[in-house]
Amino acid sequence: MENRLKFGMVGGGNNGNIGNSHRIGATIDNSACLVAGCFTRNSELNKRDGEMWGVATDRIYETYQEMAEVESKRQDKIDFVSIVTPNHLHYLVAKCFLEHGINVVCEKPFTLSVNEAEALKALAAQNGLEICITYTYPHYPILQECKKLIQTGTIGRIIDIVAEYPQDWMILGLAQGEQNYTSWIGDPAKSGNSNVTAAIGVHLFYLIKSMTGLELESVLASFDYYPENAPLETVARIILKYSNGVKGLCWMSNVAIGHDCSISLKIYGDKGSIQWTHEDQTHLHLAMLGRPVQILSANRDYLGSESRKASRLPAGHPEGFYEAYGNIYRAFIQFLMEKKRNALADAESYFFPKAVDGVAGVRFVQACVESQKNGNTWTRLADM
Amino acid sequence: MENRLKFGMVGGGNNGNIGNSHRIGATIDNSACLVAGCFTRNSELNKRDGEMWGVATDRIYETYQEMAEVESKRQDKIDFVSIVTPNHLHYLVAKCFLEHGINVVCEKPFTLSVNEAEALKALAAQNGLEICITYTYPHYPILQECKKLIQTGTIGRIIDIVAEYPQDWMILGLAQGEQNYTSWIGDPAKSGNSNVTAAIGVHLFYLIKSMTGLELESVLASFDYYPENAPLETVARIILKYSNGVKGLCWMSNVAIGHDCSISLKIYGDKGSIQWTHEDQTHLHLAMLGRPVQILSANRDYLGSESRKASRLPAGHPEGFYEAYGNIYRAFIQFLMEKKRNALADAESYFFPKAVDGVAGVRFVQACVESQKNGNTWTRLADM
Amino acid sequence: MENRLKFGMVGGGNNGNIGNSHRIGATIDNSACLVAGCFTRNSELNKRDGEMWGVATDRIYETYQEMAEVESKRQDKIDFVSIVTPNHLHYLVAKCFLEHGINVVCEKPFTLSVNEAEALKALAAQNGLEICITYTYPHYPILQECKKLIQTGTIGRIIDIVAEYPQDWMILGLAQGEQNYTSWIGDPAKSGNSNVTAAIGVHLFYLIKSMTGLELESVLASFDYYPENAPLETVARIILKYSNGVKGLCWMSNVAIGHDCSISLKIYGDKGSIQWTHEDQTHLHLAMLGRPVQILSANRDYLGSESRKASRLPAGHPEGFYEAYGNIYRAFIQFLMEKKRNALADAESYFFPKAVDGVAGVRFVQACVESQKNGNTWTRLADM
Amino acid sequence: MENRLKFGMVGGGNNGNIGNSHRIGATIDNSACLVAGCFTRNSELNKRDGEMWGVATDRIYETYQEMAEVESKRQDKIDFVSIVTPNHLHYLVAKCFLEHGINVVCEKPFTLSVNEAEALKALAAQNGLEICITYTYPHYPILQECKKLIQTGTIGRIIDIVAEYPQDWMILGLAQGEQNYTSWIGDPAKSGNSNVTAAIGVHLFYLIKSMTGLELESVLASFDYYPENAPLETVARIILKYSNGVKGLCWMSNVAIGHDCSISLKIYGDKGSIQWTHEDQTHLHLAMLGRPVQILSANRDYLGSESRKASRLPAGHPEGFYEAYGNIYRAFIQFLMEKKRNALADAESYFFPKAVDGVAGVRFVQACVESQKNGNTWTRLADM
Repeated sequence: MENRLKFGMVGGGNNGNIGNSHRIGATIDNSACLVAGCFTRNSELNKRDGEMWGVATDRIYETYQEMAEVESKRQDKIDFVSIVTPNHLHYLVAKCFLEHGINVVCEKPFTLSVNEAEALKALAAQNGLEICITYTYPHYPILQECKKLIQTGTIGRIIDIVAEYPQDWMILGLAQGEQNYTSWIGDPAKSGNSNVTAAIGVHLFYLIKSMTGLELESVLASFDYYPENAPLETVARIILKYSNGVKGLCWMSNVAIGHDCSISLKIYGDKGSIQWTHEDQTHLHLAMLGRPVQILSANRDYLGSESRKASRLPAGHPEGFYEAYGNIYRAFIQFLMEKKRNALADAESYFFPKAVDGVAGVRFVQACVESQKNGNTWTRLADM
Repeated sequence: MENRLKFGMVGGGNNGNIGNSHRIGATIDNSACLVAGCFTRNSELNKRDGEMWGVATDRIYETYQEMAEVESKRQDKIDFVSIVTPNHLHYLVAKCFLEHGINVVCEKPFTLSVNEAEALKALAAQNGLEICITYTYPHYPILQECKKLIQTGTIGRIIDIVAEYPQDWMILGLAQGEQNYTSWIGDPAKSGNSNVTAAIGVHLFYLIKSMTGLELESVLASFDYYPENAPLETVARIILKYSNGVKGLCWMSNVAIGHDCSISLKIYGDKGSIQWTHEDQTHLHLAMLGRPVQILSANRDYLGSESRKASRLPAGHPEGFYEAYGNIYRAFIQFLMEKKRNALADAESYFFPKAVDGVAGVRFVQACVESQKNGNTWTRLADM
Repeated sequence: MENRLKFGMVGGGNNGNIGNSHRIGATIDNSACLVAGCFTRNSELNKRDGEMWGVATDRIYETYQEMAEVESKRQDKIDFVSIVTPNHLHYLVAKCFLEHGINVVCEKPFTLSVNEAEALKALAAQNGLEICITYTYPHYPILQECKKLIQTGTIGRIIDIVAEYPQDWMILGLAQGEQNYTSWIGDPAKSGNSNVTAAIGVHLFYLIKSMTGLELESVLASFDYYPENAPLETVARIILKYSNGVKGLCWMSNVAIGHDCSISLKIYGDKGSIQWTHEDQTHLHLAMLGRPVQILSANRDYLGSESRKASRLPAGHPEGFYEAYGNIYRAFIQFLMEKKRNALADAESYFFPKAVDGVAGVRFVQACVESQKNGNTWTRLADM
Repeated sequence: MENRLKFGMVGGGNNGNIGNSHRIGATIDNSACLVAGCFTRNSELNKRDGEMWGVATDRIYETYQEMAEVESKRQDKIDFVSIVTPNHLHYLVAKCFLEHGINVVCEKPFTLSVNEAEALKALAAQNGLEICITYTYPHYPILQECKKLIQTGTIGRIIDIVAEYPQDWMILGLAQGEQNYTSWIGDPAKSGNSNVTAAIGVHLFYLIKSMTGLELESVLASFDYYPENAPLETVARIILKYSNGVKGLCWMSNVAIGHDCSISLKIYGDKGSIQWTHEDQTHLHLAMLGRPVQILSANRDYLGSESRKASRLPAGHPEGFYEAYGNIYRAFIQFLMEKKRNALADAESYFFPKAVDGVAGVRFVQACVESQKNGNTWTRLADM
């Protein structure tokens, strides 16, 4: 008897990075199996990709609409679809599958507008379906320890938060003449009204949210543009205000030369602090007031069980980006399986980003855009 | 038409780390498919494991002998078997499959004695089969750049080599009462006549060999034992002498508190030097004489194609241990496929550890044991 | 013939850290000699301190007024006085010595108000005297290379700046019951209207200014307070706008558990970027677009002469905080000596923080305070 | 009344690095005053140097013999002399001052032969004088904590030691045509029979000795030479055996491209381990079995008083090489002062390298040379 879930993909063809991250992440624990897909618009490549990944010919579809339609009627239909298309298609594809009764995994940012995000969330709720957004970073194993240390009070009351995410791929691409601005990333028609905030700012937003549990109330954002006439922002500096009064700071850039993907997080409490950086993704720095800084290492015995369960290898054997995707999928798949068996535990037990997190991410982006438009003034997420 | 290879496993059951590394590594590129196995001696667990991994019931075997026998007669027989058993079984299992005409992937150390290793190498050659040994570390993507920089002369003539590999799992295990010495790792009956040298020293041996291409001629080894009455060494300090006169130094320990898996390599030439450490596995430090040290980052544009092809994700997205296994399997699978098609390129094009490397690793271990036995004197590998 | 300058100190008694930094910094090159002082209000300790430091009895003064009065009339009067008192006395002491024709070295922050700072600057100009403010950090040797790389265009046009300075001494002190808030640091009567911005924010302000040469036009500041009822801010987040449109970001805290003195600076240009952190004060990270990050090390041959001259020891021999003070004093003393000989080169040749930098620092602090008061709005330094 | 000691210098002229280190180190605490010297053979430069450093004209001597002669007869004679000459002169100069009743501070290596070292030690003892050898590294403040942690048993029984010291100045110098081998460093006539072992190996030897208190019994050394025809070794790999059976490993090189002065030390016990590296000289890594690695930072409250007293600045303000020299001088000066007052505490209270350490260092070098000569065999220090 097959005890794996079945899933399909929309997008993710041509051996692209994000497609592979989903495919490997979903299957790394052998708890799901790719059985259907519409991988790319090019019919020939679509077929080739499907075959390469072992999808039966009759489940390689020309359009996502056809895929949703046909799959929804099969006895052995897919349990969920993973949406790995350009951002502006997320809404339409997700809507289509939700309408056909199929659960959705969607790349971030969820949608380009708050209305779309809210609509999808409502639709899922109405149809008894689940949405998972693949914000990757909180799912590195050691960050489960971070979450636990914060939420059980080890570092005390939070008094400050600083997060940053510099990259240089866009300035590198521009210099190499890869007209990214004229392709979809820098094109408002396809990317919506935000570049760096939507692309990587939402990662910082959700990373803080998932670690601290705090609710972001308002932002004050200041954008920058490179080149100066770029239609969308390439740098964002954002002051954060949480509902309990805690404040914080975010900085993000995709024109910061020398950085690969240098997301980092610092959370300060009144008893201790925690630091994590993606460039050393398997360690956490914990500083307790008046004590030496401690370096916590993934899957060591002294960690809590939440964090250790998120590791697949012994301490010292690095696990990376694919494995973080694997952890999102693991939780989502476990949720779907236990839902099928009517054996759901409480929601907190399943650590994956949900529709509500997708909606909040879109509100965050829109509030930043609004703050910048209004001369760097405080803007409430609830007003978006 | 299926364009994936088929493989089986002996050992690797019970969701063990090494079994998973092989399973994930072999399938991460979707170029091989697990179709047969004898995962564990316990019949029930064996069946459960096979099913979990999607193996058809009739290809889950009770013994490796039966598996070799039956598979070798199938039309759709496995292209290779991955051997993930305790060390003392490597020889027997590999021999059995080679005799039945099936290619072999074997965990390190290849065998417990030089004779066994040479016998397997000869058997494979005789039967036109290939052996691959899974020495992991050289297969991190950035180390392809290291290899290229060394072998194309960027750092000049090599004048010194320093490598180390400290871990603390054994002293931790001893303290926790996990009688590792009385189980197979510290037991000469099952592990042979070496502990830390065979377990991790061979990694250093092959890491240096694969990066530099140098042929190790002699060793001078000094062992240590913890606890003092341990039957096998837990620390080894080894001075290396290569055939061209280059000398180097190795240190390894599995009782070095605080280290997870801290393998590191430093190669000094007369024009420059290279450093790499497993704790920062995606970067390489390159120092050219009189110039600032440079930090090379995996999959950046400025790297050579060999290294970039070994990365699956854009720069800054960490790839870890599983992906390194994936790179060994990728090369081995490509070799087998091109051999099938009679389209083999020259041997150097396929970067995976071969039978000759397995044999050399065993010689290295035995020469160290001999040097220690003889009062820390120079011992030639060729004399083993 | 004595070719050293003579100097006196006001404050800096009781073997305090800052007093020692000045004393060691001023004398490390043997180009100045401490000959007079009023080290502390306690008459007995004052005498003891003076003797310990080799000051003749008749030049140990009970009050700074007497010291200025008497010294100004001596044939062998001091060339300059170093002011190392609590902040609120800087103005009065500096005024007194400037009125008596004596050059001034003053700890930061220069004064508590813009008016005081402007008055001292005018007084010095009127009397043909010089003022030096001891902003320490830009005077680490490797930062001379940073300055040169930026100002000669190596990293291109600046497009972003990020600086931070977290410490934890205040939260540690509070926890230990050292009522810092009720002593002078947290007391508006003695410290003026700013805590962390005045104490360490000015360091970030001047570090950026001295490295980039950019003129800060406006700030948007958001303060935080720990404990919540603290009279003065303990955290400041400041968005910066320079006169040429460049923007940047500062964050500073003295309640950030785990940080000793972790000032860091990141400058992004359109051709490259530079990073420096105080915790690794002898290195600079230089990233040129599309090239590996380079680690520049103090006093290596490949550095420019400005940076190399600022090092006193060969590469690899760490120079620290005292030596950075030594570099400020070296430049100031050289300036005074060459002025004496009517041999002044152009002002840029003497790299020490001047009255104009002291004034600008006070304007920066006051603009931040004003921005916070007005609900985190853009505030011009020129309007302070 | 003057409560500072008076000292003189032989060598250290021309503003050389080592001379400055001694001058600044001896005076940084204002507890000693340079009053006499014979700084260089060039009469004119000697005079200029003396004046620059405030030495009275009649105490600037043309020869060290004259200096010892004249000073020894003065009422206000120097309390000690600091010897900063090329290595081959150490013996003669030290002998001369000891014969004239003057205490000696001597740069390492103490002498070129064991006989010379033993003779000086005996002479000092006979004349009731003290010798201090300036092995620098153990005198960084955080290493006082290292010493305490080891010697009070925090990390348990020592089971392994690994130390290294790579530099690249010699290969850099060779490439730049600075014929170091033909000047005194690589010239056996002036440097004795060892290059890198005598120059930096002794630092490793004493660093381990001072931290652990262990007595080195035997060495097994393997040397290398760059260029191949170099008269003295440029690389040394040394296996260490201590009198209690503990073993360890040293590696040193001055042809290791990319390293400034990268001394590091790792001490493994059966309860914990300690790591320190000169490139991060203010921190110590302490790993207790099964616990997160801790980063200890100089002058933090949680450190013991020995370490904290060795710091002059608050945590986070880097102290470097000069300050380490300052700590040797501080202990030596305190010893001499308390000896004068007949108030000596037990010898352990004064942490500076003594004649016995100088002798042992020379024995270490000679045993390594002998081991290499005899084909890399175990050689006892006592047999030298």
